[in-house]
Order: sequence, then structure tokens, then C-alpha cells
Amino acid sequence: MIIDLRSDTVTKPSKGMLEAMTEAKVGDDVFREDPTVNKLEQRVAKMFGKSTALFFPSGTMANQTAIKLHTNPGDQVICDKYAHIYNYESGGASFNSGVSCKLLDENKGMFNAQHVLDAINPEAYYYSKTSLVEIENTANRRGGTTWDFNEILKIKKVCDEHELGFHLDGARLWNALVAKNETTQQYGEVFDTISVCLSKGLGCPVGSVLVGDSKIMENAIRIRKIFGGNMRQAGYLAAAALYALDNNVNRLIQDHKKAKEIGEELSKLSIIKTIEPIETNIVIFELNNDINENEFVKKLADNNIYVISMGGGKLRIVTHMDYSDAMHESFLRYLKGFKLIT
Amino acid sequence: MIIDLRSDTVTKPSKGMLEAMTEAKVGDDVFREDPTVNKLEQRVAKMFGKSTALFFPSGTMANQTAIKLHTNPGDQVICDKYAHIYNYESGGASFNSGVSCKLLDENKGMFNAQHVLDAINPEAYYYSKTSLVEIENTANRRGGTTWDFNEILKIKKVCDEHELGFHLDGARLWNALVAKNETTQQYGEVFDTISVCLSKGLGCPVGSVLVGDSKIMENAIRIRKIFGGNMRQAGYLAAAALYALDNNVNRLIQDHKKAKEIGEELSKLSIIKTIEPIETNIVIFELNNDINENEFVKKLADNNIYVISMGGGKLRIVTHMDYSDAMHESFLRYLKGFKLIT
Amino acid sequence: MIIDLRSDTVTKPSKGMLEAMTEAKVGDDVFREDPTVNKLEQRVAKMFGKSTALFFPSGTMANQTAIKLHTNPGDQVICDKYAHIYNYESGGASFNSGVSCKLLDENKGMFNAQHVLDAINPEAYYYSKTSLVEIENTANRRGGTTWDFNEILKIKKVCDEHELGFHLDGARLWNALVAKNETTQQYGEVFDTISVCLSKGLGCPVGSVLVGDSKIMENAIRIRKIFGGNMRQAGYLAAAALYALDNNVNRLIQDHKKAKEIGEELSKLSIIKTIEPIETNIVIFELNNDINENEFVKKLADNNIYVISMGGGKLRIVTHMDYSDAMHESFLRYLKGFKLIT
Amino acid sequence: MIIDLRSDTVTKPSKGMLEAMTEAKVGDDVFREDPTVNKLEQRVAKMFGKSTALFFPSGTMANQTAIKLHTNPGDQVICDKYAHIYNYESGGASFNSGVSCKLLDENKGMFNAQHVLDAINPEAYYYSKTSLVEIENTANRRGGTTWDFNEILKIKKVCDEHELGFHLDGARLWNALVAKNETTQQYGEVFDTISVCLSKGLGCPVGSVLVGDSKIMENAIRIRKIFGGNMRQAGYLAAAALYALDNNVNRLIQDHKKAKEIGEELSKLSIIKTIEPIETNIVIFELNNDINENEFVKKLADNNIYVISMGGGKLRIVTHMDYSDAMHESFLRYLKGFKLIT
Repeated sequence: MIIDLRSDTVTKPSKGMLEAMTEAKVGDDVFREDPTVNKLEQRVAKMFGKSTALFFPSGTMANQTAIKLHTNPGDQVICDKYAHIYNYESGGASFNSGVSCKLLDENKGMFNAQHVLDAINPEAYYYSKTSLVEIENTANRRGGTTWDFNEILKIKKVCDEHELGFHLDGARLWNALVAKNETTQQYGEVFDTISVCLSKGLGCPVGSVLVGDSKIMENAIRIRKIFGGNMRQAGYLAAAALYALDNNVNRLIQDHKKAKEIGEELSKLSIIKTIEPIETNIVIFELNNDINENEFVKKLADNNIYVISMGGGKLRIVTHMDYSDAMHESFLRYLKGFKLIT
Repeated sequence: MIIDLRSDTVTKPSKGMLEAMTEAKVGDDVFREDPTVNKLEQRVAKMFGKSTALFFPSGTMANQTAIKLHTNPGDQVICDKYAHIYNYESGGASFNSGVSCKLLDENKGMFNAQHVLDAINPEAYYYSKTSLVEIENTANRRGGTTWDFNEILKIKKVCDEHELGFHLDGARLWNALVAKNETTQQYGEVFDTISVCLSKGLGCPVGSVLVGDSKIMENAIRIRKIFGGNMRQAGYLAAAALYALDNNVNRLIQDHKKAKEIGEELSKLSIIKTIEPIETNIVIFELNNDINENEFVKKLADNNIYVISMGGGKLRIVTHMDYSDAMHESFLRYLKGFKLIT
Repeated sequence: MIIDLRSDTVTKPSKGMLEAMTEAKVGDDVFREDPTVNKLEQRVAKMFGKSTALFFPSGTMANQTAIKLHTNPGDQVICDKYAHIYNYESGGASFNSGVSCKLLDENKGMFNAQHVLDAINPEAYYYSKTSLVEIENTANRRGGTTWDFNEILKIKKVCDEHELGFHLDGARLWNALVAKNETTQQYGEVFDTISVCLSKGLGCPVGSVLVGDSKIMENAIRIRKIFGGNMRQAGYLAAAALYALDNNVNRLIQDHKKAKEIGEELSKLSIIKTIEPIETNIVIFELNNDINENEFVKKLADNNIYVISMGGGKLRIVTHMDYSDAMHESFLRYLKGFKLIT
Repeated sequence: MIIDLRSDTVTKPSKGMLEAMTEAKVGDDVFREDPTVNKLEQRVAKMFGKSTALFFPSGTMANQTAIKLHTNPGDQVICDKYAHIYNYESGGASFNSGVSCKLLDENKGMFNAQHVLDAINPEAYYYSKTSLVEIENTANRRGGTTWDFNEILKIKKVCDEHELGFHLDGARLWNALVAKNETTQQYGEVFDTISVCLSKGLGCPVGSVLVGDSKIMENAIRIRKIFGGNMRQAGYLAAAALYALDNNVNRLIQDHKKAKEIGEELSKLSIIKTIEPIETNIVIFELNNDINENEFVKKLADNNIYVISMGGGKLRIVTHMDYSDAMHESFLRYLKGFKLIT
């Protein structure tokens, strides 16, 4: 039994999802004639109360497109120091949109409206023009943490007053919704654009969706084409997404429960220095000096348990739908019996 | 019976292809762990005698990546006036790579080595630096025409002498190979990079592959990530591609035969002004003044036959694997009986 | 006596201009406090009936800024095949603005409204978006030719109907105005932005000005800063420009007269194949097979007469304010006595 | 008597400098024929022991060109949080070069080799590629502070080991050299490229120079042309620069002395909360709660003394060659008698 806790992106389609894929009605989406893609886009748009949704081959492309829609070259984006768009998209925001980021490092990633206000550049022409605020919910590198929706509303107010776009990287928004009992509708009311991923917690093989109102989204299909994200019979992938929306959202609560139980077990180990608060399906922890992180990763791998190092002494565990109850029991048992023999 | 001759991109996976997709072993390709993607990439690389291949969600992204790999911002690309990269990729070459095109309009798209030589800019710093020559084989907008391989060899010599990259947009290279009895190997020996499409003549739902040697391809995966073309469990799409390479290449000869037969029938109609020579699966023709192109397209559509206008008075028919023998008979019958009643 | 007819850019400030420069009141233009720069900008804006003008270190930067103001990355610019912005700005339009050019090669560079209309791309998202039309008056590479103002008005109508910007590269607009008895005012009424050069016919050492109305120009100062074109005490250069506007515009008629006289003399030489019609201060001609262009350039250089080859068998002579009456007499005498001894 | 201490960029040419400008031999620098520009470039190159130097209309363009020479789109630059290239060049690094910045906020801007090492991104393709380290000496926003040359040598070692370019923004390098008794030669040995400004402490109206070895500089003239920084008879500006190198470098020590004396006087005022250590010609200080910064700026302005607010409660005073001994006495007298009456 291989226990892969490196990421919720390693999930593979279930039997039911595969059947849905096989039975999908498809067409050429370049001509906008794929009925399953169209159905998915309409469904997701409606879920968020937005007029328009567009299917993408990746969350990175959905985010990169959103950044382009909100900015002009030379502009600046306000986001968290550990934002995916700054750290894990190969420098794409600068490559694709010619923008820079003003990074905030406040409240463990959950900056507030005042921080945004302070980060807006003065208007003088020798400053970069601030034009977009981006947040990530849940915040991956911050440990799957969720945002306080009231603070989001206050940030929105600053955005409106300063004519800034407001984009949500919702790669793991589903986890936040389930953890906090929030709705897509309420997020749709606040953000100008939202990207949601279907291939992480929801278990699809490929795909993300970007939603927004018609004015901001008008140019999205052109940007997607420029990046080369316009696929032909993408309906197979869209069918998986539709299946996931029907079947895989509510079950995320189980991943969260397992993550918390792993955290409890970890906290009993003498080698653990700190564990960040666990809100959803991500456990981030540091080791003390008794063992270094690479040794620890290797030791687990020798037992067919896979976790990843995030650099800077931090390790990450992510629970997901392919991490079964049996695996969970086995992993907890392993942790209970963990001995450091050097 | 709907007869869709607008493009060979409208094809849908056959039962066998769908089965191959369903049974595919998959993994997370962002971690480079999808075995089917890896298998496809290795196979295509080997077919062309290149060290490296990379799977892409579209031919546009494969081309855009190649352009980026060969150029620096401000550089210039020599290509045909009707090249896909200039005309049908939303201005992506300038957006993504900051390059311009020097367009040639020679020999119906089949420019020669001297034309390339004449198109290279002088070295003075106020000229754009010429750095890439691109050809398309078959040439879509030129009517599915094929290049003379000897001329390609001569152009290669110019590229070598002037340190220019040489990229092949092989969206329909399979058609050229079958029509001319050429090999992937011989193309691999000449071009620095080649994009081949799996979703046109070969009938896959999604995907293209870019091949090249390790030095030029080293940065390709980073560029693909920047565009957001890095998919997760892409093995389902790769499985279709492997199936197509096994089953759908040689059969292209049938599409070519049908295209020629359609051409013959068309040429008998009084409303046809000219038909371009038919070398592969594309038929481009012009109407005389008895009927305008939109009327003609509509008249056919009323009979469930779909073709497209290319602008400038030209119409296009493309044969493909979903254009069955029965459809072909029916269409030829329709043409034989075509009457212009106005 | 050295006779330099390579370009009107080789002129050096006269004594009067140098005095004006030395006496200039200056300040820090980054703070917008240089009184002479401010005076020049206000004067040129008023000349063209526009609200805003901005001083630039070169015509290239004024053009590049204009292109950026009118376009978004991926867009397309319609211009003549021999436009300076496409050919002699190092690929800057693609580098700086991410745009491509749709080149027209009609009526010796003087395309008409119908050509523009035909060159606008369809709206479908896979085409580049057409957003700007650019003309050059006088057209350098076309032989200093001037545009028919009525045709300009018709092109403007197409621009308005299709929401395209309209930019004039007026590097030698002064020559056109003098040759055709036209006014800055009438050009200001038609074009959205106009760049005019002060260092060619007008004899200043450095500088161009871009004019436009406040909305389009709002962002110009930021773009200039991004390129690094924001100078400190630029008033010395602006003072030269003010002097030139007072003293050096009307005298251009003398340069035109000299150019025509050179053309007449050239036309008598047996080695001359063709001379393009001479409208302003540029003479473009081709040699027949008796002598190649490099030999001819060298032969003249041996006599301290400098002209340049433009490539493609064409040679160019440009008259200017430092080409004195004495030089003119001497050059005409030389041409009269020209013998081809090989 | 107006005492302008906002910046050392407000200086105007002295009588001697103006004479040097007027007498300059000039030519068309687009053809590389301006003898004074050529002389300046050769002189500055030699001063730094580099093969190549290029004259620019601004320090911003010299820096932006250097960034472009060292990077590819998508790359990342390591620099101080308050670096001019990130904060005061209108977002140009992302606009022109498509790069992002990794900002360090260590040791009041004087980061060390270990900080650089920690800031280099891992090689995985989803990270931006780190390719350049940039430092500013003196560091303007850090209070005109100077770098420890030994630390620079250690950073250089990290750059070499990780194949990173090393650029020095030497807008006020002359101040550092004079303050620390260092030489241009020693900086030339360490940095790949160095920009030096001639219009700040040195008192020229316009201009900066970028130096480097031939390989890295090969493309600089093309980049300068793309930005539009290629001027015609720029020799007037270069003549001022040559004059300044002869006459205005050593005198910077007087500006430093005056800055220290101002600092001493300020430190006696009860309204001053903190003054940053004064190393060169910049004095940065904060006020306590008795008076806000705008009131203070206004109070001084009412006495014809001009200083600027830097935001965040900080004020800046910059001494320079146009801040005469008489002005200095007057300003010190003013500070001695300063009374806060509210």
C-alpha cells in the first residue's frame, strides 16, 4: 500500500468519473461546439452568480488569464508573499502580463484592508500603477488556511474605492467553502474573477474554470487562445468536472478530519517542533534538530509514505480522496509507533 | 446524416480510442509522473530521432513555445503570408515572444532558399534581428499543399549559414508524410523543432507534441508552465494519441482520395471558378459570380452539409476520419445533382 | 568641402540655435519644472490644436509610445510595408507593445481607405485584434512622398467606424506642410496622435514631440518613464526646438528645390535607371548595370560626397539646412562632369 | 534666496560646463559619428576597466537596459526592497524585460552573500529562474548609505557560483567612491554592468552611462534603440559629462560635509524623532508627534527651503553643488532658530 500525501493533485478519477468521461458528448470547443464544456461553463457561472465562465487546462492558466484581464503591462498586483501566482507559476505574471507584485507578509498571509490600502502606490508616474488585489483561499503555502469573509468584504471596499480589480485564486476554494459553511454565491458577489480548480480536492484529471462578469471576461477567450489553452474535444475533461461537482465536494470534510487527526498524532512526536493550525486538508510542520527534513522524508518513503519538503525546514502533508480510511489507519499507526533511531 | 467538412478538427474519438483512454495508467504530469504521457513523449521523440518531446494541450501552444525557444523579444520570424502562427494564433507570437514576422508571398506559399536569404535583415542595430524560419507542412491556407523536401534542405542550409532556427508547424505533417511517402526521421534530421497535432487528421480529442533536441528543448517545460499548459493526469489524452499513432496514420490516404474525388466533382459544376490543386485532404475553391459564397455555404447547410468560407471569396472543404464512405457517396451524389436555382 | 547627403539628421545647430540653447532657462523635467520644456510642449500642442504634448529624446521613442498608447499586447497595426515603425525601430513595436503589423504595399505606400478596410481582421478571437492605423508623412523609404490629405480624411472615417486609433509618424511632417501648403491644425484635427521630429529638417541636435488629446496622452508620461526617456534639464534641447520652430520651417522649401535640381541633373546621367518622383527633400534612384551601387557610393565618397545605399539597388540623397548653396553648386557641377571610367 | 534640497537632480550646469557644451564637436550618434559621445564612452569604459560604455538619456534607461541584457522574460532579479529599479522606474523591469523582483529587507538594505544565496530560487521549472543580483551604491532610499566592498566581493562569489549577473546601479556611485576612497577600477572588476549618472551629484543636465564587457554589452545599443534612447547630436550632453568628470567629482566631499552638519543641527531639534546615519549627501529623518511631515515641509517652504517627504513619515534632504556655502549658513541658522509654534 502506497500512501501518497504529497498533494491532492495526485488523485486519479474514480470508476464513476471515468464512466462519465467515456459517455460524454463532445464537439470542437475551438468552434465553441462542445456541449459538455458548454454545460460545465454554464453551471459554474451560475454557481457563482456570474454571467460567464471559461474552462482552462490548468489553474495556472486561469490565474494568468485573470491577471492579464485586470492589468496593463507595468502595473502592480498586491498579494501575499507566498501567493501561488508569485511563487509557483514560473514568473508567469511578469512574462505574460508584464506586471510586478507587491508582496505582503502580514497575519500569516491573511492581510487586512488597511494593509492593502498601505500597499497601493502613489499616483505619480514613476511608480508602478497598482491595479489588482489577489488572494488565495485556502492559502496553500500558509497551511490550507481560510480567510475571514468579513475581512474580504473590507478589502473589497478598498478595491472599489481605488478602482482595483479583485481576483480570487480558488484552487482550493471548495475546501474553504466546506470548512466554513460558505457559498459560491457569496464569493461571486465579492470578487471580479475567481479561478476554481477541479483537479485537486475534486479529483478530476485536468482542468480549472475562471468565472467573472461579461465585461471583464469578454477578452478571456482571446487570452486563452494566445496562451494556447484552447482545446478541441475538451468535453471528456468537462464531464469529469461535472461529475465531481455532483459527487466530490461535500466529501472534502472527511479530508479535513483526517488532516486534523494526523496533526494530533504528529504533535505527540518528540521530533516535531511546530505544527501550523490545521483548518482544511493541509498539515504543515517543522522538525526539531534531532532529525533533518530530508532524512525524515526518506524514512517515511522507506515505509511507502510520501510527503514533501517545502524548503526552509517545513514539511507538508495533504489529505485527499485517494487517501483512504485504510491508508489513514495505517499512517496513524505508523506515527504512533514512530521511533527515532539514529 | 450530418456531413461536417469544415475541418478535420471536428473528429471524435472512435470506440477503440475511447477504450484506450479509459484504460490508461495516469499520474500527475506536473511531477512528471504520468506514465502514459511519458510513453507518448518518448515514442514521438524517437519517431523523429530527437532526444526530447513534450505534450501540449494544443498545437497553438506547441508553436508558441517553439517560437519562444528560438527567439528573443524584438527578433523577427520569416514565414509564409498565410502561416497559422501569424494569422490564426490571436497575435500570440508578438504577445508571448515579442517578435514580428517577415511575411513571404512566393510560389503559393512554397518559398525557396533565395527568398529566405533575401528576407534576412541586415545586421545593423536599427533592424529587427532575424532569428527563425518557420514553415507549415501541409500548408493549411494554401490548400493542404506539401513542400518539396529538396527545397526544405536548401532552406536549412541558409538557416545554418545565418544561425537561424528552423521550426516546422506540422499540424498536418502526417498528411504530408502519407501523401509523399516521407518519414518522420527525415524531418527530424532537418528541423530544430517540430510540432505535430494529434487532434486533426489523427482523430484525438486534444493534444499536440513538440519535439527537438535537448538543448533547445531544455526550457520548453518552463515555457509551457508559464502559459499554463502543464496538465495533471493528462495520460487520458496521451492514451488517445498512442492509439492514433498505431491506427490512424496510414488511413489518411483515404481522406486524400476522397478530397480528390470531391475536387473532380466540383470542377464539373458551372458555378466553380477555380479549384486549387488537391494534394492532401483540403479542397479550396472559388465561386464565380453566379452565386456568392455565403449563399453557397447556406445552401449546403440546408442539406446538412457543412463547409466554411475562408474570406476573400474562398471556400474550404476538409476530409477526415469521421467523413465516412456513406457520407462521401451522399455528398458526391449531391454535387452531381447540384442545380443553381436562384 | 565635405558634402554629406546621407540624411537630414546630420545637421548641426547653427550659431543662433546654440545661443538659444546656452541662454535657456532650465529645471528638473522629472519634476516637470523645466520652463523651456514646458514652453515647447505648450507651443507644439497649440500648433496642432491638441491639449497635450510631450518631449522625447527621439522620434523612435515618440512613435513607440504612441503605439503603446493605442494598443494592447496581441493587437495589430496597419501600416505601409516600408513604415519606419516596422523596419527601422529594431522590432520595437513587438518588443515594447507586443503588437504585430499588417503591412500594405499599395500605390507606392499611399494606401487608401478601402485598403485599410480590407486589412482589418475579422472579430473572431483567433485573429489578432486590429487597433491602430499608422501613416508616415512624408514617407521616407517611399522617397519623401506626401500623402493626399483627402485620402487621409477617408482613412480617418474608416478608423472612426471601426474604433481604430490613427497615428501619424511626422518625422518629416514639416517638409510635407511646406510642400503642400498644409497646416499643423488640419493634421491635428484628423490624427489621434502625431509625432514630429525636431532633429531632421529642423536642424536641432536632439528631440521629438508627441501630441494628442488628454485622454490618449494621459499615460504617455508613464510610458516615457518606463522606456527611460525622462530627462532632467532637457530645456537646452527644448530651446533648440523653439528656435527651430521660429527659424527653420519655411526654409525647407529651399531643400526641396535643391533636391529637384539634383534629380534633374541625375536624370541626365546614362548610369541612372530610374529616379522616383521628387516631392520634398529626398531623392531615391536606381543605377543600371554599368555600375553597382557600392562602387557608385565609393566613387562619390572619394570626392567627399556622401550618399547612402538603401539596399535592393536603391540609393538615397537627402538635402538639408547644412547642405549649403556652395555645396549644391559644387555637387551639380560634379554631376554635370560625371564620367564613368571603368 | 531659494534653498532647494529636494534632490541633487535639481542642479544646473555651471558657466564652465555650459561653455564646454557650446564648444562641443558633434555628429550623428545614430551613425555613431558624434566625436564627443565617443570620447565620453571611451573615457568612462576605461575608468572602469571595461571594454564598452554607452551613453543614455537617463539612469532609468541605463538600468532598464542592463536588466534586459542580463535576463530573459520570466526571470527573477534579487535586489533590496527599496531599490530604485523596483520602486521608481514605473514598473519598467516587468514591462520591458518581463522579470519579477525578489526583494530583500536585510541590514538596512545592505544584504549579504548569505541572503543572496537564500534568495536564489530552486531549479524546478515552476519557479522563476533567478538570473541577476542588483545593488545600488549609494542606496538612495536607505539614506545615501554605502556598501562594504568586502561584502560586495562575497556576493560576487555567489553570483559566479550560480551563474547570476551582477549589476550596480551607480546613480550616486561617485558619492560612494569619494566617501570611501574607492576606485572605479575596483568596481569595474567586480560588476558585470554598472550604470553611472552624470546629472545628479556631477551636475550635468542629462545623461547616464552603462559600462560592461563586450559580450554582455553587444546587444546594448539595440536595446537602447528599441527604447528610443538613440539620440542624434548628443555630444552637447556628453561634453557636459566630460567637464563634470574633470571638475565635479572630488568636490562631492563638500556636499557630504554639509549633509553631516545639517544632521547635527537637526539632531538638536526637539521635533526630530530619529536621523539615519549620514554617510554621503543624503539626510533622512523622522519627526515626532509634535508636528506632521506635511506641516514641516510647508513651514520650510514658507521660508524658501525645499525638502521632500518620502512617505511613511520620512523626510529627505539632499545636498549638492548648487547648494552654496551661503545657503548652507543660512539653512543652519534657520535650524538653530527653529521654533515650533502651533
